[in-house]
Amino acid sequence: MSKPEFQRARSPEAKQMREAAILDAARALGAEHGIRQVTLTDIAARAGMHKSALLRYFETREEIFLRLTAAGWQEWTPALAARLGAITEPGPASVARAFAETLAERGMFCDLLAQAPLNLERNVSLDAVRDFKLATLAARECVFTALEEQLPRLGRDDALDLIATAVALAGAFWQIATPGPEVAALYRSDPRLAHAVIEVEPRLTRILTATITGMTPEPA
Amino acid sequence: MSKPEFQRARSPEAKQMREAAILDAARALGAEHGIRQVTLTDIAARAGMHKSALLRYFETREEIFLRLTAAGWQEWTPALAARLGAITEPGPASVARAFAETLAERGMFCDLLAQAPLNLERNVSLDAVRDFKLATLAARECVFTALEEQLPRLGRDDALDLIATAVALAGAFWQIATPGPEVAALYRSDPRLAHAVIEVEPRLTRILTATITGMTPEPA
Repeated sequence: MSKPEFQRARSPEAKQMREAAILDAARALGAEHGIRQVTLTDIAARAGMHKSALLRYFETREEIFLRLTAAGWQEWTPALAARLGAITEPGPASVARAFAETLAERGMFCDLLAQAPLNLERNVSLDAVRDFKLATLAARECVFTALEEQLPRLGRDDALDLIATAVALAGAFWQIATPGPEVAALYRSDPRLAHAVIEVEPRLTRILTATITGMTPEPA
Repeated sequence: MSKPEFQRARSPEAKQMREAAILDAARALGAEHGIRQVTLTDIAARAGMHKSALLRYFETREEIFLRLTAAGWQEWTPALAARLGAITEPGPASVARAFAETLAERGMFCDLLAQAPLNLERNVSLDAVRDFKLATLAARECVFTALEEQLPRLGRDDALDLIATAVALAGAFWQIATPGPEVAALYRSDPRLAHAVIEVEPRLTRILTATITGMTPEPA
């Protein structure tokens, strides 16, 4: 934080705009190439600034992608709550499908969900981790509310486990379902590897249907 | 592969011993520090050889850890099958506990399970990926057999989904449960972050119990 004063004397609005531009650049690159390929230098180039200038806004590439992960939670959870609210045939299968569809539609978010605990939370400040955890905690509230309406017999602890299961599986399955191009070709060419080719949405729907069914046994 | 002939003219036994020594060194370092911290240079130093010598046996650090992941599957699955075979009170909860206990006892394997699709499968040769996939596929067979005996109503597709769910959740939850020391201290210090502290085994037992219950409905 030893930058000369004239560089820091921006208006809060100008600072927010630069941050938003950096996040937009990282989002576009992540969607094009996958998170793992994107460097801080790439993001600075896409945002049209020098890397040294970018470092005044974010400390590491991990901080940028952790911010995008939090933004992903804030965008996904209301969409999921709306999908849950629109269910016409209540029950475990419909709820599972709402989770699976809304997650499978958000490939970069699935990528980020898997990367966050492994890679992103490990190279940022404690403040950044705290902000991230509190943001994702708050984002869950609208899902709890929607689940209470759809599945009145699902307790709060089960709802927490269900969300954790859905995001962990979506992250892991997305990684397995999107290997590099050479490995994808290998999977298609060798019938013994047919099991390695998975589709995120149907598998997630099947598993979450079973999990929710087991969490909400019919009253005896 | 332009090494001089005299270096490659080892007996197959000598080559296997060097490979085993390298894998042992990587396993010890991974258990001490977590996979993500361990470099090829660290492994060479622990195995008592130069990095250039190590590169005659393995192409990348990822290839070494992918081999350890396959070895982890080959060690875990018979242990799980034995635990399943020893169940005295059959049912979803006992089967779930066998999965959760045997996975939670194997921290480095959980770490590897999460790292494999994200990081390890992406920096190795196609042959290495093929060998890895075929090894983990074969390792599952003894679990299928044990599951058939414990849960006769669980179909093969559900058994495949169950194994995939257990390893994906174990990998993801292990990462969340073992943050760096500073982040762990933050979690303990801020009551708003209590939800961020999770225990792998009880959570995995709860979720898998529900999933298996939903996969094996009582006949009407």
